[in-house]
Amino acid sequence: MSSSTRDLTELFSERAAMARPGFVGTNPRRIADTIAFSGGYPDPGTLPIQDIIESTRVALERDGEWALQYGFGSGIPELVTQLSIKLGRDQGIQAGPENILITNGSSHALALIFELFVNPGDVIIAEAPWFMGAIWRARASGCDVREVPLDAEGLDIGVLEQTLRDIKAEGKQAKFLYCVPTFQNPSGITYSLERRKAIVALAQEYNMPILEDDAYYDLRFEGDALPPMYTLDDQGLVMYCGTFSKTMAAGMRLGWCVASPQITARLAGLKTDSGTSPFSSHVAAQFAASGTLVEHINHLRPMYQHRRNVMLSALEEHMPEGTTWTVPQGGFFIWMTLPDGITCADLAARCEEGGVSIGQGAMFFYNGGGEQQVRLAYSFNTDEEIQHGVQVMGAAAHDLQAAAAAATAD
Amino acid sequence: MSSSTRDLTELFSERAAMARPGFVGTNPRRIADTIAFSGGYPDPGTLPIQDIIESTRVALERDGEWALQYGFGSGIPELVTQLSIKLGRDQGIQAGPENILITNGSSHALALIFELFVNPGDVIIAEAPWFMGAIWRARASGCDVREVPLDAEGLDIGVLEQTLRDIKAEGKQAKFLYCVPTFQNPSGITYSLERRKAIVALAQEYNMPILEDDAYYDLRFEGDALPPMYTLDDQGLVMYCGTFSKTMAAGMRLGWCVASPQITARLAGLKTDSGTSPFSSHVAAQFAASGTLVEHINHLRPMYQHRRNVMLSALEEHMPEGTTWTVPQGGFFIWMTLPDGITCADLAARCEEGGVSIGQGAMFFYNGGGEQQVRLAYSFNTDEEIQHGVQVMGAAAHDLQAAAAAATAD
Repeated sequence: MSSSTRDLTELFSERAAMARPGFVGTNPRRIADTIAFSGGYPDPGTLPIQDIIESTRVALERDGEWALQYGFGSGIPELVTQLSIKLGRDQGIQAGPENILITNGSSHALALIFELFVNPGDVIIAEAPWFMGAIWRARASGCDVREVPLDAEGLDIGVLEQTLRDIKAEGKQAKFLYCVPTFQNPSGITYSLERRKAIVALAQEYNMPILEDDAYYDLRFEGDALPPMYTLDDQGLVMYCGTFSKTMAAGMRLGWCVASPQITARLAGLKTDSGTSPFSSHVAAQFAASGTLVEHINHLRPMYQHRRNVMLSALEEHMPEGTTWTVPQGGFFIWMTLPDGITCADLAARCEEGGVSIGQGAMFFYNGGGEQQVRLAYSFNTDEEIQHGVQVMGAAAHDLQAAAAAATAD
Repeated sequence: MSSSTRDLTELFSERAAMARPGFVGTNPRRIADTIAFSGGYPDPGTLPIQDIIESTRVALERDGEWALQYGFGSGIPELVTQLSIKLGRDQGIQAGPENILITNGSSHALALIFELFVNPGDVIIAEAPWFMGAIWRARASGCDVREVPLDAEGLDIGVLEQTLRDIKAEGKQAKFLYCVPTFQNPSGITYSLERRKAIVALAQEYNMPILEDDAYYDLRFEGDALPPMYTLDDQGLVMYCGTFSKTMAAGMRLGWCVASPQITARLAGLKTDSGTSPFSSHVAAQFAASGTLVEHINHLRPMYQHRRNVMLSALEEHMPEGTTWTVPQGGFFIWMTLPDGITCADLAARCEEGGVSIGQGAMFFYNGGGEQQVRLAYSFNTDEEIQHGVQVMGAAAHDLQAAAAAATAD
């Protein structure tokens, strides 16, 4: 049949033309045989298999008639209730059903927010570097991104304010600010309380919504918790997105957005799935209601802290002088800056040969940059794999540095 | 907080402005206490609760590490493989991984297809009457819909051809034809083989893709199976959408689109969920691989046939003279035409008072019509509820007819 299959490109929409074709095939386990420092994958050994089996049994025996029936847009009540309890207890966020939208992972929530606000050409503001998944959404929506650099305390407030003034001077309006204030992806930094307050104040002054992506909030293993910006705003400007992917199971595809009733209803209207899976939602609700979620998070925190420490020690041991990196207080990522003379692209190629994948810095910028920077996830691999992977990376970096020095000497 | 919450309407995108706000709240069980002839809900008593619990246990004990991890765009291999086997065995469709996209229910597949093809103002062709869920997508995409009437054999080919000529004369191109050729929703009719062939021939002549929505294919309880149009086209023009919602569980939110590799890759690129739930997909794959899916379908067919018969008998007994209805060979729906003098809106209001909801005909047309027509689902309620519900509806129709006669006599 394929010999006579027509090319239908000319029938495709303008929107579709902005998105790249997706991966199709049967090999999703590309991470199985590699040391994967590149992705934000949870540790496979900690996936709560027996707890999910048990939650499924309990939820379906009690509520199977509803878990297996059609649901509806904003989320099934059992999960909305459990999320409301969780957010109040852990995040200090008071959110009722009118504020909560359950989504197919937080990537789905991000996509809905881009769809709600962005016409092609519209301006948004983002951190630099920022989350690759959000960058893909920005590209697919055709928006004009103004990137604001991060320092150790968060977004550079001076640059943010100047950016807002510049946008206003152009007669434009920033549709929203995208940020990950806690254990930022990819940098691992956490915004200070002062910085959070300053950003909310600017958002209120410039009538700019904030997309606060807080995927790693629960995985703090050091330092005191800081309030989400959602709790610092009293004008309904913050959209607070999160996920069960890191604390329950990524395979459930369950995330959320918490926002004003107006935004929540609008986002619900843009969903096209006839409601996020009632099946998965009932299982997740039972997992939370039984106390297993809290237990599981308490188990994950010291485990990821240990993994971070293993990676930090290995970096100290193996990376050449002049390499620097961040020390995250939680989450999955370390952000490494290579010494002069070594590019991330060269390093990635050499690592790949050694069976190690790294997150190339350039993927985390929209308007260029990051050529000497690397995102390293310590979340997926075992201690031994981390040690071996960093050793491979360190040896490659030393080789590249020696080659660069030789070239300079020539 | 709500007193100072800002109205952000002016920041919303043009696309978002075309979609209505979604339902937000905690009462999805609106169908629980009614006799619901209005929705396409599967029979709750047949939902395979214990089989899903067992499939979950087996799938997670074997593949939990992958069922609970991130997946990717087009679908996890276990489910793609099972669907490929199922389509070959039951539908006569030869589809490999390059043709298959797993989606969050078939409503998600429809939405992706609208997004792939339709710019605001673009022309599509649809049956009249047609599926409400597709009508919502058409409205949200801002397209120009040309409706072609159905007769007992399917789309009226003469009108379809004239419509295609008219569109061409306007210098336009139909982006696709939407149709449900088997147990059509809402009419219950099935396209004849000749009609299917004629439609495919026109599609090839006019370079028009076909969205063949075949949600009810497996639920045939009378007559011989007819080949999907996907098997009658050799040029990659047909996109074949289906779902496990009617044959496994709607709450799983698992559907699919089978199409040319080009279209499949493009649709995969428009997904924003980071892959349809690996958890649900592994459970569904096990449900299919174990033979439970086939057993369950074999159990459902005579059950729905019986329900149809109960409703047909009740209609004969209770509806006033001059009422007509279709007799479907499968699926969930009977399409009823009321005698002159009774409108569906009036009947629906009277039924509602009696705790019975009916599908108002006008909801199944894009450009008007259907005021005297009713969609009746026999899928959701018990025999007794169907009998009682039709009795309530029949009494209301007799009352309305008497009132109309009295008004005429005055």
